[in-house]
Order: sequence, then structure tokens, then C-alpha cells
Amino acid sequence: MTGTLYGVGVGPGDPDLMSLKAARIIAGAPVVAYFAKRGQPGNAYRTATGHLSARAEQLRFDYPYTTDLPVGDARYEPALESFYDMAGVRIAERLQAGADVAVLCEGDPFFYGSYMYLHDRLSTAHRCEVVPGITGMSGCWTRAGMPMVRGDDVLSVFTATLSENDLVSGLQVCDAAVIMKVGRNLPKVRAALTRAGCIDRALYVERGTMPDERIERLCERSDAPSPYFALVLVPGEGGRR
Amino acid sequence: MTGTLYGVGVGPGDPDLMSLKAARIIAGAPVVAYFAKRGQPGNAYRTATGHLSARAEQLRFDYPYTTDLPVGDARYEPALESFYDMAGVRIAERLQAGADVAVLCEGDPFFYGSYMYLHDRLSTAHRCEVVPGITGMSGCWTRAGMPMVRGDDVLSVFTATLSENDLVSGLQVCDAAVIMKVGRNLPKVRAALTRAGCIDRALYVERGTMPDERIERLCERSDAPSPYFALVLVPGEGGRR
Repeated sequence: MTGTLYGVGVGPGDPDLMSLKAARIIAGAPVVAYFAKRGQPGNAYRTATGHLSARAEQLRFDYPYTTDLPVGDARYEPALESFYDMAGVRIAERLQAGADVAVLCEGDPFFYGSYMYLHDRLSTAHRCEVVPGITGMSGCWTRAGMPMVRGDDVLSVFTATLSENDLVSGLQVCDAAVIMKVGRNLPKVRAALTRAGCIDRALYVERGTMPDERIERLCERSDAPSPYFALVLVPGEGGRR
Repeated sequence: MTGTLYGVGVGPGDPDLMSLKAARIIAGAPVVAYFAKRGQPGNAYRTATGHLSARAEQLRFDYPYTTDLPVGDARYEPALESFYDMAGVRIAERLQAGADVAVLCEGDPFFYGSYMYLHDRLSTAHRCEVVPGITGMSGCWTRAGMPMVRGDDVLSVFTATLSENDLVSGLQVCDAAVIMKVGRNLPKVRAALTRAGCIDRALYVERGTMPDERIERLCERSDAPSPYFALVLVPGEGGRR
């Protein structure tokens, strides 16, 4: 009798936006695993903490190098690969010993989530169940009070790590856009939105639904580095009824 | 003391995927409103029904014309407009009488949701709070066991009502795609995916997370009319680690 691996989406940050199913699985899991940045509590952990059983074993995996390596450094990819290998091995030990393991995931596990790298490694040999979650972007446009897409609007989701030219050409062929993981890329994102003619509609949302959220029109926001959990929203202008 | 309008996302269909906040607001609301197709229970209602208070007043609004008018008929838009006007007036009466009103919304209210048409009409004069939900597309890719986007993947979301040419040009510039509201448009969607070279990766998902869900590779699915709650998923092929 081996255990089941649960990839549990905990939603955008507000613990109250977790699903009933996610809360139940987290409360009942004998082993709870999560990724976090060194020196920080971890966003998924912080969201889920009120639901964890005091008896659960906690497996915390600290990401290797986050901001301490220059972008594009050749050591980054292999380090991440062995990091996920190691996490997969440690989780597989618990599954083989018969324990269910709940992996806490920010937002929705199959939508840009790190859980996918564990799923790749473990889903062939182990029983896996994924619980979807409310995405960070849904949390952000809701908090901004911004109806995002309607009618025939086309929505595109980009990461801010794309080149300025790729962002511009993508923005030109959609009606509504989300640019995720802004981090240090705000000057580039701003330039792309300006060239694509949608800077005036763009909103900057940082840590949406969390206690320290910030919401500003992008044209009023400085280019200072932003957290990873910041995104830019451009709402659609689809047919009003 | 006027009431608050809650736009409550109930998620993709499985009642267990509702958020803790949505379940609590629905259970406590003295008035619960929802849209439905004539002769059907209504998907949002069906999802939320286990949480409704027996004492709550239910306001059900039946959509005018759904499949009985030909596509593009000039009577459609004005009929929908006065439909939303009428629903807004009836909800506003309850708010003015001091009652909170929870509007049940499939998926996420600000993501292609009908709730937006009430929000347009009521949010200036009334206190509104929107509760985000797990989108139908998240429910579908989760049930399909399909990691959707990772790394720098660009995701685009289209509606199947777009022209074949618009679908093709949109599909050519993204890495992953969702085509929503398939309905009678499957032959056109299939043709567009074939021309864009991604028909082999495409998956058809109908009523994902609901008891009668169906998941098939699109190339194995017939062109028979599909329900409104059917979508096509093309997963990204972003960098694996």
C-alpha cells in the first residue's frame, strides 16, 4: 500500500480562497511538502498554515540560488534540475512507506507551478491527484475590481522574462493580457506596453489578496524592482451589454 | 443600510472546488440569484445547491433565446441587454431593502462571466464584492492530468466563436491554448488547429469536474454538436527540468 501524491493548489494567497477540497486534503495529510525561497516562510506555506495538522511531517525544500546568480547563468538550470530530483526522491520515500504527501502549490498547480516538475518525476510510478486552485491572476483582477475578459475577447498570458519584442508582438494580437512574474523586468514591460499602445489601461498588482497587496495604475508606478508575485493586467474591452 | 452585492465564483462544477469564502457567503446570503438556461437547473446553481440556506430567497433568471435564434440574429443583443437590465433592477430592489444578494457564477466572475453585466449596472450605486473562483479551464486541464504552461510558455484563451482565420493566426503565436465555449463550432476549431499544426496535441474536455465529464483526444472525437461547457486544450511544451 503506497501513498498518494496530492498536488494541492492553495490559491492566490488569501487562505479563505482555498477550495474546500484543498483545505480537507491539507488537514488530513501525514506529510506536507512545499518549496520556498531561502530565508522566507514560503507563500504556499503561509497560505495553508492554518489548515495543517500539528502532527504532520513537514518537508520544506529551499530553492537553490534565487536572486544570487545572474540571469542566464549556466549553473542555474542544472542546479534546479538536481533540486527537483532530490525533492522527488525524498517525497517518493514517504509514498513508498505508505504515507500520502500533499505538496502545497501557490495558485493552480498546472498553471506555471513548480509542482509540475515533481509531477513529471513521480506520476508514472505513483498515484497522483491534482487539486486545481484559484490562480494568482484571478485573485489580482478581482481585487482590482476589474472585469477582465468578456464576449469574444482573446486573453494572453505572458511572463515578464520574454524579450521586449516578443511581448510587443504578443500584445498586438490579443484583447486582454496578463504579464506575470514581473520582478526586475518592469522597465521592459513598461516599454513593451507603451509600444503596443496599451500602457494607459495597464494596472500593476503586487501580492494580490495577501495582507500587503498593492494595486496601482502602471503609469503611476516607479520602475523599482518588484517582487516575483507582481503582475501587470491589461483588461479587455469586449462588447458591453 | 443597503445590502451588499456578492459576485461569487463557484468554480468549475465540482462543489468541493468552491472556495471556503464562497461557501460561507452562499450559506449566509438571504437572497441568492443566478442565471440559467430555460428548462435546465443551471450549472452554477447545481454546483452551489448543497450550500444554500433553506431560508434564502432564490432569484432565478432564465436567459432569453439560447439556441432558438439563429447566430447573429439582430434580436439577440437587445434582448440580452434588456434581460440584464431587468435582472439588475430586481436585484437592486433587494439591495435597497437592506438584503445582501449573492449572485452564483460559474468559474471566475471576471473571466467571461455573465456576472460582469450585473456588475456594470450595479457597482456604481451599490457595495459590491467579488469572490474569485477556480476557472472551468483549470478544472479541465487538471482532470485531463495535463500540465498546461511552464517556464516562458505563452497561453492564449480564445472563444470558439472567432473566425477560423482569427483562430489560426492566434494559435500560431502562442505556446499553449484554450478554446472555450465550443458548442457547435467543433468543425471550425478542428480546422483551425489542423492549419496551425497543433491538432495532435489537442484535447477535448466536456463538463470537466462534473459527474458527466468527458475527456478525449480531439482527433478521436466526432464533430457532433458539443455543449457550451466544452473546451479544447493545447498544452505548452515549455522547458522541462
